[in-house]
Amino acid sequence: MAYRETDLVRQRKVAQKSGLLHTAETLVREGGFGALTIQAVAEGAGVGVGTVYRYFSGKDELATEVFKRATSREVGAVREALNGNGGPAACLAAAAEVFAVRAFAAPKLAWALIAEPVDPAVDLARLQYRKTYTALFETVVQAGIANGEFAPQSAGLSAAALVGAMAESLLGPLDNRACDADTIAALRLFCLRAVGAQC
Amino acid sequence: MAYRETDLVRQRKVAQKSGLLHTAETLVREGGFGALTIQAVAEGAGVGVGTVYRYFSGKDELATEVFKRATSREVGAVREALNGNGGPAACLAAAAEVFAVRAFAAPKLAWALIAEPVDPAVDLARLQYRKTYTALFETVVQAGIANGEFAPQSAGLSAAALVGAMAESLLGPLDNRACDADTIAALRLFCLRAVGAQC
Repeated sequence: MAYRETDLVRQRKVAQKSGLLHTAETLVREGGFGALTIQAVAEGAGVGVGTVYRYFSGKDELATEVFKRATSREVGAVREALNGNGGPAACLAAAAEVFAVRAFAAPKLAWALIAEPVDPAVDLARLQYRKTYTALFETVVQAGIANGEFAPQSAGLSAAALVGAMAESLLGPLDNRACDADTIAALRLFCLRAVGAQC
Repeated sequence: MAYRETDLVRQRKVAQKSGLLHTAETLVREGGFGALTIQAVAEGAGVGVGTVYRYFSGKDELATEVFKRATSREVGAVREALNGNGGPAACLAAAAEVFAVRAFAAPKLAWALIAEPVDPAVDLARLQYRKTYTALFETVVQAGIANGEFAPQSAGLSAAALVGAMAESLLGPLDNRACDADTIAALRLFCLRAVGAQC
Protein backbone atom coordinates (compact mmCIF):
# COMPACT_ATOMS: atom_id res chain seq x y z
CA MET A 1 0.00 0.00 0.00
CA ALA A 2 1.39 3.39 -1.02
CA TYR A 3 2.17 5.84 1.73
CA ARG A 4 -0.46 8.50 2.12
CA GLU A 5 -0.10 11.70 4.06
CA THR A 6 -2.63 11.90 6.81
CA ASP A 7 -4.54 15.15 7.20
CA LEU A 8 -2.60 15.74 10.36
CA VAL A 9 0.76 15.51 8.59
CA ARG A 10 -0.47 17.80 5.84
CA GLN A 11 -1.70 20.38 8.32
CA ARG A 12 1.59 20.25 10.21
CA LYS A 13 3.49 20.88 6.99
CA VAL A 14 1.33 23.86 6.06
CA ALA A 15 1.80 25.29 9.54
CA GLN A 16 5.56 24.76 9.44
CA LYS A 17 5.93 26.40 6.02
CA SER A 18 3.85 29.34 7.18
CA GLY A 19 6.03 29.67 10.29
CA LEU A 20 9.20 29.67 8.18
CA LEU A 21 7.75 32.39 5.94
CA HIS A 22 6.87 34.41 9.02
CA THR A 23 10.44 34.10 10.30
CA ALA A 24 11.77 35.01 6.86
CA GLU A 25 9.58 38.10 6.65
CA THR A 26 10.76 39.21 10.08
CA LEU A 27 14.34 39.08 8.79
CA VAL A 28 13.42 41.17 5.73
CA ARG A 29 11.48 43.61 7.90
CA GLU A 30 14.62 44.18 9.97
CA GLY A 31 17.37 44.05 7.36
CA GLY A 32 15.90 43.82 3.87
CA PHE A 33 16.38 40.88 1.51
CA GLY A 34 20.11 41.20 2.19
CA ALA A 35 19.48 39.78 5.66
CA LEU A 36 17.54 36.79 4.35
CA THR A 37 19.51 33.55 4.30
CA ILE A 38 18.44 29.94 4.67
CA GLN A 39 20.75 29.71 7.69
CA ALA A 40 19.17 32.74 9.39
CA VAL A 41 15.66 31.42 8.80
CA ALA A 42 16.61 28.03 10.22
CA GLU A 43 18.13 29.64 13.30
CA GLY A 44 15.20 32.02 13.75
CA ALA A 45 12.70 29.17 13.49
CA GLY A 46 14.75 26.81 15.63
CA VAL A 47 15.03 24.12 12.96
CA GLY A 48 17.83 22.70 10.87
CA VAL A 49 18.65 24.09 7.43
CA GLY A 50 17.50 20.79 5.93
CA THR A 51 14.00 21.51 7.16
CA VAL A 52 13.98 24.89 5.39
CA TYR A 53 15.17 23.25 2.18
CA ARG A 54 12.30 20.79 2.44
CA TYR A 55 9.95 23.72 1.70
CA PHE A 56 12.06 26.09 -0.40
CA SER A 57 14.56 25.24 -3.13
CA GLY A 58 16.82 28.07 -2.01
CA LYS A 59 17.09 31.70 -1.02
CA ASP A 60 15.59 33.00 -4.28
CA GLU A 61 12.38 31.01 -3.90
CA LEU A 62 12.13 32.00 -0.26
CA ALA A 63 12.63 35.69 -1.14
CA THR A 64 10.00 35.50 -3.86
CA GLU A 65 7.47 33.91 -1.50
CA VAL A 66 8.14 36.50 1.19
CA PHE A 67 7.72 39.22 -1.43
CA LYS A 68 4.42 37.83 -2.67
CA ARG A 69 2.99 37.29 0.80
CA ALA A 70 3.89 40.76 2.04
CA THR A 71 2.89 42.54 -1.18
CA SER A 72 -0.47 40.76 -1.33
CA ARG A 73 -1.21 42.21 2.08
CA GLU A 74 -0.30 45.73 0.88
CA VAL A 75 -2.40 45.32 -2.26
CA GLY A 76 -5.31 44.26 -0.06
CA ALA A 77 -5.03 47.39 2.08
CA VAL A 78 -4.90 49.65 -0.99
CA ARG A 79 -7.84 47.83 -2.57
CA GLU A 80 -9.89 48.35 0.57
CA ALA A 81 -9.10 52.09 0.54
CA LEU A 82 -10.01 52.36 -3.14
CA ASN A 83 -13.33 50.64 -2.45
CA GLY A 84 -14.20 53.06 0.36
CA ASN A 85 -17.41 55.00 0.70
CA GLY A 86 -16.40 58.37 -0.76
CA GLY A 87 -16.20 59.46 -4.38
CA PRO A 88 -13.24 58.68 -6.66
CA ALA A 89 -11.11 61.60 -5.41
CA ALA A 90 -11.64 60.69 -1.76
CA CYS A 91 -10.88 57.02 -2.49
CA LEU A 92 -7.72 57.89 -4.44
CA ALA A 93 -6.53 60.16 -1.63
CA ALA A 94 -7.23 57.44 0.93
CA ALA A 95 -5.35 54.84 -1.11
CA ALA A 96 -2.26 57.05 -1.46
CA GLU A 97 -2.38 57.72 2.26
CA VAL A 98 -2.78 54.06 3.19
CA PHE A 99 0.11 53.09 0.92
CA ALA A 100 2.41 55.69 2.46
CA VAL A 101 1.38 55.24 6.09
CA ARG A 102 1.85 51.47 5.86
CA ALA A 103 5.23 51.90 4.16
CA PHE A 104 6.50 54.21 6.90
CA ALA A 105 5.25 51.81 9.57
CA ALA A 106 7.72 49.21 8.22
CA PRO A 107 10.27 51.27 6.25
CA LYS A 108 12.90 48.61 5.73
CA LEU A 109 10.31 46.09 4.54
CA ALA A 110 8.70 48.67 2.25
CA TRP A 111 12.05 49.59 0.74
CA ALA A 112 12.85 45.90 0.23
CA LEU A 113 9.50 45.27 -1.46
CA ILE A 114 9.66 48.34 -3.70
CA ALA A 115 13.26 48.70 -4.73
CA GLU A 116 15.98 46.66 -3.03
CA PRO A 117 18.31 45.20 -5.66
CA VAL A 118 17.64 41.48 -5.44
CA ASP A 119 17.23 38.30 -7.44
CA PRO A 120 15.52 38.63 -10.87
CA ALA A 121 12.74 36.32 -9.67
CA VAL A 122 11.66 39.00 -7.19
CA ASP A 123 11.96 41.66 -9.92
CA LEU A 124 9.58 39.60 -12.02
CA ALA A 125 7.10 39.37 -9.15
CA ARG A 126 7.42 43.15 -8.70
CA LEU A 127 6.37 43.71 -12.31
CA GLN A 128 3.38 41.43 -11.85
CA TYR A 129 2.21 43.14 -8.67
CA ARG A 130 2.60 46.58 -10.22
CA LYS A 131 0.17 45.44 -12.89
CA THR A 132 -2.20 44.38 -10.13
CA TYR A 133 -1.93 47.80 -8.48
CA THR A 134 -2.37 49.51 -11.84
CA ALA A 135 -5.60 47.62 -12.52
CA LEU A 136 -6.99 48.73 -9.14
CA PHE A 137 -6.13 52.38 -9.76
CA GLU A 138 -7.47 52.25 -13.31
CA THR A 139 -10.93 51.47 -11.95
CA VAL A 140 -10.98 54.53 -9.69
CA VAL A 141 -9.53 56.80 -12.43
CA GLN A 142 -12.26 55.61 -14.80
CA ALA A 143 -14.90 56.30 -12.16
CA GLY A 144 -13.51 59.80 -11.63
CA ILE A 145 -13.53 60.56 -15.34
CA ALA A 146 -17.08 59.23 -15.60
CA ASN A 147 -18.50 61.35 -12.79
CA GLY A 148 -16.49 64.45 -13.69
CA GLU A 149 -14.32 64.57 -10.54
CA PHE A 150 -11.22 63.93 -12.70
CA ALA A 151 -10.11 65.40 -16.02
CA PRO A 152 -10.63 63.38 -19.22
CA GLN A 153 -7.47 61.25 -19.63
CA SER A 154 -6.13 57.85 -20.53
CA ALA A 155 -7.14 55.92 -17.40
CA GLY A 156 -4.68 53.09 -18.07
CA LEU A 157 -1.69 55.37 -18.52
CA SER A 158 -2.61 57.53 -15.53
CA ALA A 159 -3.13 54.48 -13.32
CA ALA A 160 0.33 53.10 -14.12
CA ALA A 161 1.83 56.56 -13.65
CA LEU A 162 0.20 56.87 -10.21
CA VAL A 163 1.63 53.50 -9.17
CA GLY A 164 5.10 54.52 -10.35
CA ALA A 165 4.80 57.91 -8.67
CA MET A 166 3.75 56.44 -5.33
CA ALA A 167 6.56 53.89 -5.27
CA GLU A 168 9.35 56.15 -6.48
CA SER A 169 8.46 59.18 -4.38
CA LEU A 170 8.67 57.22 -1.13
CA LEU A 171 12.13 55.73 -1.75
CA GLY A 172 14.04 58.78 -0.55
CA PRO A 173 11.91 59.35 2.57
CA LEU A 174 11.96 55.61 3.39
CA ASP A 175 15.73 55.51 3.03
CA ASN A 176 16.05 58.42 5.44
CA ARG A 177 13.25 57.15 7.68
CA ALA A 178 11.85 60.62 7.08
CA CYS A 179 8.20 59.96 7.68
CA ASP A 180 6.21 62.97 8.48
CA ALA A 181 2.70 64.12 7.80
CA ASP A 182 4.02 66.58 5.20
CA THR A 183 5.45 63.80 3.04
CA ILE A 184 2.18 61.91 3.09
CA ALA A 185 0.15 65.04 2.37
CA ALA A 186 2.49 65.92 -0.52
CA LEU A 187 2.02 62.50 -2.09
CA ARG A 188 -1.75 62.67 -1.71
CA LEU A 189 -1.86 66.08 -3.37
CA PHE A 190 0.46 64.99 -6.19
CA CYS A 191 -1.89 62.10 -6.99
CA LEU A 192 -5.01 64.28 -6.88
CA ARG A 193 -3.46 66.99 -9.05
CA ALA A 194 -2.18 64.36 -11.50
CA VAL A 195 -5.68 63.15 -12.30
CA GLY A 196 -7.06 66.68 -12.40
CA ALA A 197 -9.10 66.47 -9.19
CA GLN A 198 -9.99 69.61 -7.25
CA CYS A 199 -7.62 69.83 -4.29
CA MET B 1 63.02 47.73 -17.13
CA ALA B 2 59.34 47.23 -16.32
CA TYR B 3 56.98 46.78 -19.22
CA ARG B 4 55.06 49.93 -20.07
CA GLU B 5 52.01 50.18 -22.28
CA THR B 6 52.65 52.38 -25.24
CA ASP B 7 50.03 55.01 -26.05
CA LEU B 8 49.16 53.00 -29.11
CA VAL B 9 48.42 49.87 -27.10
CA ARG B 10 46.34 51.87 -24.66
CA GLN B 11 44.33 53.48 -27.42
CA ARG B 12 43.73 50.13 -29.06
CA LYS B 13 42.42 48.71 -25.78
CA VAL B 14 40.04 51.62 -25.25
CA ALA B 15 38.76 51.22 -28.81
CA GLN B 16 38.33 47.47 -28.42
CA LYS B 17 36.42 47.82 -25.13
CA SER B 18 34.18 50.46 -26.67
CA GLY B 19 33.53 48.18 -29.64
CA LEU B 20 32.58 45.29 -27.35
CA LEU B 21 30.16 47.56 -25.45
CA HIS B 22 28.64 48.66 -28.73
CA THR B 23 28.13 45.02 -29.75
CA ALA B 24 26.69 44.26 -26.32
CA GLU B 25 24.24 47.16 -26.51
CA THR B 26 23.09 46.01 -29.95
CA LEU B 27 22.22 42.63 -28.43
CA VAL B 28 20.24 44.30 -25.62
CA ARG B 29 18.53 46.60 -28.12
CA GLU B 30 17.31 43.53 -30.00
CA GLY B 31 16.56 41.07 -27.22
CA GLY B 32 16.93 42.73 -23.83
CA PHE B 33 19.48 41.73 -21.20
CA GLY B 34 18.27 38.16 -21.65
CA ALA B 35 20.03 38.11 -25.04
CA LEU B 36 23.33 39.35 -23.59
CA THR B 37 25.95 36.64 -23.14
CA ILE B 38 29.73 36.74 -23.28
CA GLN B 39 29.56 34.19 -26.11
CA ALA B 40 27.16 36.33 -28.17
CA VAL B 41 29.28 39.44 -27.69
CA ALA B 42 32.41 37.55 -28.75
CA GLU B 43 30.66 36.23 -31.85
CA GLY B 44 29.16 39.61 -32.70
CA ALA B 45 32.51 41.34 -32.35
CA GLY B 46 34.42 38.58 -34.15
CA VAL B 47 36.77 37.88 -31.23
CA GLY B 48 37.30 34.99 -28.85
CA VAL B 49 35.50 34.84 -25.50
CA GLY B 50 38.89 35.25 -23.79
CA THR B 51 39.16 38.71 -25.31
CA VAL B 52 35.79 39.72 -23.84
CA TYR B 53 36.84 38.43 -20.41
CA ARG B 54 39.98 40.58 -20.66
CA TYR B 55 37.68 43.63 -20.33
CA PHE B 56 34.72 42.35 -18.31
CA SER B 57 34.75 39.96 -15.36
CA GLY B 58 31.50 38.40 -16.57
CA LYS B 59 28.00 38.95 -17.84
CA ASP B 60 26.91 41.00 -14.83
CA GLU B 61 29.68 43.57 -15.24
CA LEU B 62 29.02 43.75 -18.96
CA ALA B 63 25.28 44.27 -18.38
CA THR B 64 25.96 46.99 -15.83
CA GLU B 65 28.29 48.84 -18.21
CA VAL B 66 25.79 48.60 -21.06
CA PHE B 67 23.12 49.90 -18.71
CA LYS B 68 25.22 52.86 -17.56
CA ARG B 69 26.33 53.81 -21.07
CA ALA B 70 22.82 53.69 -22.54
CA THR B 71 21.16 55.37 -19.56
CA SER B 72 23.72 58.19 -19.47
CA ARG B 73 22.72 58.99 -23.03
CA GLU B 74 19.02 59.08 -22.06
CA VAL B 75 19.75 61.27 -19.06
CA GLY B 76 21.66 63.63 -21.34
CA ALA B 77 18.71 63.96 -23.72
CA VAL B 78 16.29 64.65 -20.85
CA ARG B 79 18.71 67.17 -19.32
CA GLU B 80 18.92 69.01 -22.62
CA ALA B 81 15.12 69.19 -22.85
CA LEU B 82 14.84 70.44 -19.26
CA ASN B 83 17.39 73.15 -20.01
CA GLY B 84 15.47 74.36 -23.07
CA ASN B 85 14.45 77.92 -23.77
CA GLY B 86 10.83 77.92 -22.56
CA GLY B 87 9.50 78.29 -19.04
CA PRO B 88 9.33 75.43 -16.52
CA ALA B 89 6.06 74.00 -17.87
CA ALA B 90 7.34 73.99 -21.45
CA CYS B 91 10.62 72.38 -20.36
CA LEU B 92 8.85 69.72 -18.29
CA ALA B 93 6.53 68.91 -21.21
CA ALA B 94 9.50 68.70 -23.57
CA ALA B 95 11.40 66.40 -21.19
CA ALA B 96 8.46 64.01 -20.83
CA GLU B 97 8.07 63.96 -24.60
CA VAL B 98 11.78 63.36 -25.24
CA PHE B 99 11.82 60.53 -22.70
CA ALA B 100 8.83 58.83 -24.32
CA VAL B 101 9.77 59.40 -27.96
CA ARG B 102 13.26 58.03 -27.37
CA ALA B 103 11.88 55.02 -25.50
CA PHE B 104 9.51 54.15 -28.33
CA ALA B 105 12.32 54.52 -30.86
CA ALA B 106 14.09 51.60 -29.14
CA PRO B 107 11.34 49.85 -27.19
CA LYS B 108 13.20 46.67 -26.29
CA LEU B 109 16.21 48.62 -25.05
CA ALA B 110 13.98 51.03 -23.10
CA TRP B 111 12.15 48.15 -21.47
CA ALA B 112 15.46 46.50 -20.59
CA LEU B 113 16.81 49.70 -19.06
CA ILE B 114 13.67 50.52 -17.09
CA ALA B 115 12.34 47.23 -15.86
CA GLU B 116 13.71 43.95 -17.19
CA PRO B 117 14.36 41.54 -14.31
CA VAL B 118 18.13 41.26 -14.26
CA ASP B 119 21.17 41.02 -12.03
CA PRO B 120 21.05 43.04 -8.76
CA ALA B 121 24.08 45.06 -9.95
CA VAL B 122 21.92 46.55 -12.70
CA ASP B 123 19.10 47.16 -10.20
CA LEU B 124 21.56 49.11 -8.09
CA ALA B 125 22.61 51.21 -11.09
CA ARG B 126 18.91 51.81 -11.83
CA LEU B 127 18.39 53.26 -8.36
CA GLN B 128 21.41 55.55 -8.81
CA TYR B 129 20.26 56.82 -12.19
CA ARG B 130 16.75 57.43 -10.93
CA LYS B 131 18.27 59.71 -8.33
CA THR B 132 20.10 61.52 -11.14
CA TYR B 133 16.83 61.95 -13.05
CA THR B 134 15.07 63.10 -9.88
CA ALA B 135 17.69 65.80 -9.26
CA LEU B 136 17.18 67.13 -12.80
CA PHE B 137 13.41 67.26 -12.44
CA GLU B 138 13.64 68.81 -8.99
CA THR B 139 15.36 71.85 -10.50
CA VAL B 140 12.56 72.45 -13.00
CA VAL B 141 9.84 71.88 -10.39
CA GLN B 142 11.53 74.41 -8.11
CA ALA B 143 11.71 76.90 -10.97
CA GLY B 144 8.01 76.38 -11.71
CA ILE B 145 7.04 76.91 -8.09
CA ALA B 146 9.22 80.02 -7.93
CA ASN B 147 7.71 81.69 -11.00
CA GLY B 148 4.16 80.59 -10.24
CA GLU B 149 3.69 78.28 -13.23
CA PHE B 150 3.36 75.30 -10.83
CA ALA B 151 1.45 74.90 -7.57
CA PRO B 152 3.30 75.14 -4.26
CA GLN B 153 4.54 71.61 -3.48
CA SER B 154 7.44 69.54 -2.19
CA ALA B 155 9.76 69.77 -5.20
CA GLY B 156 11.81 66.74 -4.15
CA LEU B 157 8.82 64.47 -3.70
CA SER B 158 7.16 65.65 -6.91
CA ALA B 159 10.39 65.19 -8.88
CA ALA B 160 10.77 61.58 -7.74
CA ALA B 161 7.08 60.98 -8.40
CA LEU B 162 7.43 62.33 -11.96
CA VAL B 163 10.37 60.01 -12.62
CA GLY B 164 8.43 57.02 -11.30
CA ALA B 165 5.35 58.02 -13.28
CA MET B 166 7.25 58.37 -16.54
CA ALA B 167 9.00 55.04 -16.21
CA GLU B 168 6.02 53.01 -15.01
CA SER B 169 3.47 54.45 -17.41
CA LEU B 170 5.52 53.48 -20.47
CA LEU B 171 6.03 49.83 -19.50
CA GLY B 172 2.68 48.63 -20.82
CA PRO B 173 2.88 50.57 -24.11
CA LEU B 174 6.53 49.51 -24.61
CA ASP B 175 5.63 45.90 -23.99
CA ASN B 176 2.89 46.09 -26.62
CA ARG B 177 4.99 48.29 -28.93
CA ALA B 178 1.94 50.55 -28.74
CA CYS B 179 3.56 53.86 -29.48
CA ASP B 180 1.20 56.47 -30.65
CA ALA B 181 0.96 60.21 -30.31
CA ASP B 182 -1.92 59.78 -27.84
CA THR B 183 0.26 57.88 -25.37
CA ILE B 184 2.93 60.56 -25.47
CA ALA B 185 0.37 63.35 -25.16
CA ALA B 186 -1.26 61.55 -22.22
CA LEU B 187 2.07 61.27 -20.40
CA ARG B 188 2.89 64.93 -21.03
CA LEU B 189 -0.50 66.03 -19.67
CA PHE B 190 -0.20 63.75 -16.63
CA CYS B 191 3.12 65.38 -15.75
CA LEU B 192 1.83 68.91 -16.23
CA ARG B 193 -1.33 68.29 -14.21
CA ALA B 194 0.71 66.59 -11.48
CA VAL B 195 2.73 69.74 -10.79
CA GLY B 196 -0.33 71.97 -11.09
CA ALA B 197 0.60 73.60 -14.40
CA GLN B 198 -2.08 75.05 -16.64
CA CYS B 199 -2.68 72.59 -19.45
